[in-house]
Amino acid sequence: MSTHKINIGLFGFGCVGGGLYSVLEKTPGLRARVKKICVKDRNKKRSLDKEYFTFNKEDLLNDPEINVIVELIDDADAAFEIVSTAIKRGKSVVTANKKMVAEHLEELLDLQNKYKVPFLYEAACCASIPIIRNLEEYYDNDLLQSFSGIMNGTTNFILTELSEKKISYAEALSEAQKNGYAESNPTLDVEGYDSKFKLNILLAHAFGLLVSPDQLFNLGIQRINEFDSKYAKMANNKIKLVANAKKLNSGGIAAYVLPEVIYPHNELFTVDGVYNGIVTESSFADKNTFIGKGAGAYPTASAVLSDISALSYDYKYEYKKKYQEISTFLDQDFYLNIYTRYNGKNNVNKEDFSEIHDEYKSNKLKYINGRINYQKLISSDWSKDPDISIISLGSEFVSKKDSD
Amino acid sequence: MSTHKINIGLFGFGCVGGGLYSVLEKTPGLRARVKKICVKDRNKKRSLDKEYFTFNKEDLLNDPEINVIVELIDDADAAFEIVSTAIKRGKSVVTANKKMVAEHLEELLDLQNKYKVPFLYEAACCASIPIIRNLEEYYDNDLLQSFSGIMNGTTNFILTELSEKKISYAEALSEAQKNGYAESNPTLDVEGYDSKFKLNILLAHAFGLLVSPDQLFNLGIQRINEFDSKYAKMANNKIKLVANAKKLNSGGIAAYVLPEVIYPHNELFTVDGVYNGIVTESSFADKNTFIGKGAGAYPTASAVLSDISALSYDYKYEYKKKYQEISTFLDQDFYLNIYTRYNGKNNVNKEDFSEIHDEYKSNKLKYINGRINYQKLISSDWSKDPDISIISLGSEFVSKKDSD
Repeated sequence: MSTHKINIGLFGFGCVGGGLYSVLEKTPGLRARVKKICVKDRNKKRSLDKEYFTFNKEDLLNDPEINVIVELIDDADAAFEIVSTAIKRGKSVVTANKKMVAEHLEELLDLQNKYKVPFLYEAACCASIPIIRNLEEYYDNDLLQSFSGIMNGTTNFILTELSEKKISYAEALSEAQKNGYAESNPTLDVEGYDSKFKLNILLAHAFGLLVSPDQLFNLGIQRINEFDSKYAKMANNKIKLVANAKKLNSGGIAAYVLPEVIYPHNELFTVDGVYNGIVTESSFADKNTFIGKGAGAYPTASAVLSDISALSYDYKYEYKKKYQEISTFLDQDFYLNIYTRYNGKNNVNKEDFSEIHDEYKSNKLKYINGRINYQKLISSDWSKDPDISIISLGSEFVSKKDSD
Repeated sequence: MSTHKINIGLFGFGCVGGGLYSVLEKTPGLRARVKKICVKDRNKKRSLDKEYFTFNKEDLLNDPEINVIVELIDDADAAFEIVSTAIKRGKSVVTANKKMVAEHLEELLDLQNKYKVPFLYEAACCASIPIIRNLEEYYDNDLLQSFSGIMNGTTNFILTELSEKKISYAEALSEAQKNGYAESNPTLDVEGYDSKFKLNILLAHAFGLLVSPDQLFNLGIQRINEFDSKYAKMANNKIKLVANAKKLNSGGIAAYVLPEVIYPHNELFTVDGVYNGIVTESSFADKNTFIGKGAGAYPTASAVLSDISALSYDYKYEYKKKYQEISTFLDQDFYLNIYTRYNGKNNVNKEDFSEIHDEYKSNKLKYINGRINYQKLISSDWSKDPDISIISLGSEFVSKKDSD
């Protein structure tokens, strides 16, 4: 086994960066050390000797001794600048920045091809769950049918709190922030963007499908109220924020992020709190489930560590599905069963439904359970109304034909 | 990405062999085909044209066009003969034979080193769950603390049937056999040998620990009776057959197969029927859970397929932990909490316990819950008595010191 000595140039020394430093200290087996750390805030007190730090990124990017750049900053645009420069200079790169990877996946692929430099980002998808690696290496053939998952620890923590305790959404969010589970911008989490970035990245590794995040629909948990939560709980179900991807008969892929009613037999039912879970389904292996902590400094740092370790034996993603001769596309022509709750003022357009299964009306609210074409749902005006709650009733209902 | 065309010489055409053939037919993306199949039974009717078949292993092992040998026969000794010959002749090998791999791991490692030939056996451990690959690639550093798992689908199916239906052990076993979940020799499954072989293999990839299967203690589910099952169920718990491995403070590894009371909060609690599940625990990632079908023709065939696919880009196991400079050993000096049920005729030696938590006596039976040194347990005469049931009360109680 050939291994290289790894000299790391680290960008960012927040929760995850600090976590990584501790983790590296405790893994002498891996011959990796942090040589220099580039940070932004000149006034913040640091736990390490100040000679480790610099405020000039060129001190890392220009150092010929540094062979690996680990990028752990929040700002996606600055991160892309750092990462693309590092690749161009022949340095291997590890990042945990899902937004940056999702938004620049195609460019980053081109850069990897051009400069033949490994670029790894396992920590960007579900922290400690090695899902990218498994999609790349283990489900590398054309048998994968679907994957679906709880990919955001913050929202799952909030939904679990809402379901288990008698607290409001605001209280649950503040609890998540207190525990350090909420990222610097909570909007990205609660509105489903974070899950969408991960979905976007996994689509490339699972199906070779490269799309930009704005081609994927996402609805987060921000519209879920106490009634929705109780409605699910009464039937012993739970609401989870789920990112779904499924190969359709057309050869295309259905992919979206929606709150979803999860039934007790679903593999994701027991995935609570800050845990993430992903279920893959393939023609012959059937269902495989991966569960692990999806947020927090150490779980994320440990995924970064695994990538650093992989670099020591020249591992890189092959994007095998993309380079196989099976082309695919994003298909929006399928049907979902949904629950939608609204009030008198803003009405759901019933005409948009191909089938209504049941309806409820009271003085305060109304709801409809029915079947709807996905394209029609996401292009409707009412689906954009912040007072209208829309919850998928399970991706097992996804199908190409209304009559299926 | 460089890929080779794969010409397979297949040994065995039972459930898994037949399954593999179907799976390959449906994965044109993978440039692999079965060239020749060696079988034993000359009279059995086959689903393929007879020109595919031979009864002479040399027809496969001597064919220079065949670059991959896939070994899927039952007989572990004959399998080792085939596999070692193939490696010596420079052919890559894929096998699903856990007994053969476990019993010859050290020799097989030497052969791989000498002949530089990839030898993959993901299907040997928990069929569709990519656990070897994950231990090799993702948990390749020294942070892994433990793994524990339900590694045998047959016994898990039987235990689930016993817990959910009012049927006897014999009925549940026959049900498992009817469904094709029992292997050719049910003793290997129900007495915990099959789980032990898998544990044995995983110890090498998880901790770099090479031991022979007879150094590992295994007790299966054959002693569990209706009382034991009810006793667990009354407290909302389940009994599962669990293979455990844990790094102790000594630097050694505790490793054994025992029936275990699984509490509702345990990640393995929902792993029922023919499913297998493995929980890894590492210092920073915390717990990761992998769940998938652990038996059956197609799940096993799909794992074999993933190995075949991995060969197309020259993947091989690196056994990184073994070649890191951290040496380890099998440590038997730790304590377990156990439940043990016996009758008047055969007595458990209470002196062997360091602590007795509670006892029960009736005309028909007795039981003791208590703490015992593992070494003392496995070397005692009473633990060998087929009428004495021994069930672990959870590996979270494993510790080096009695007083912990």
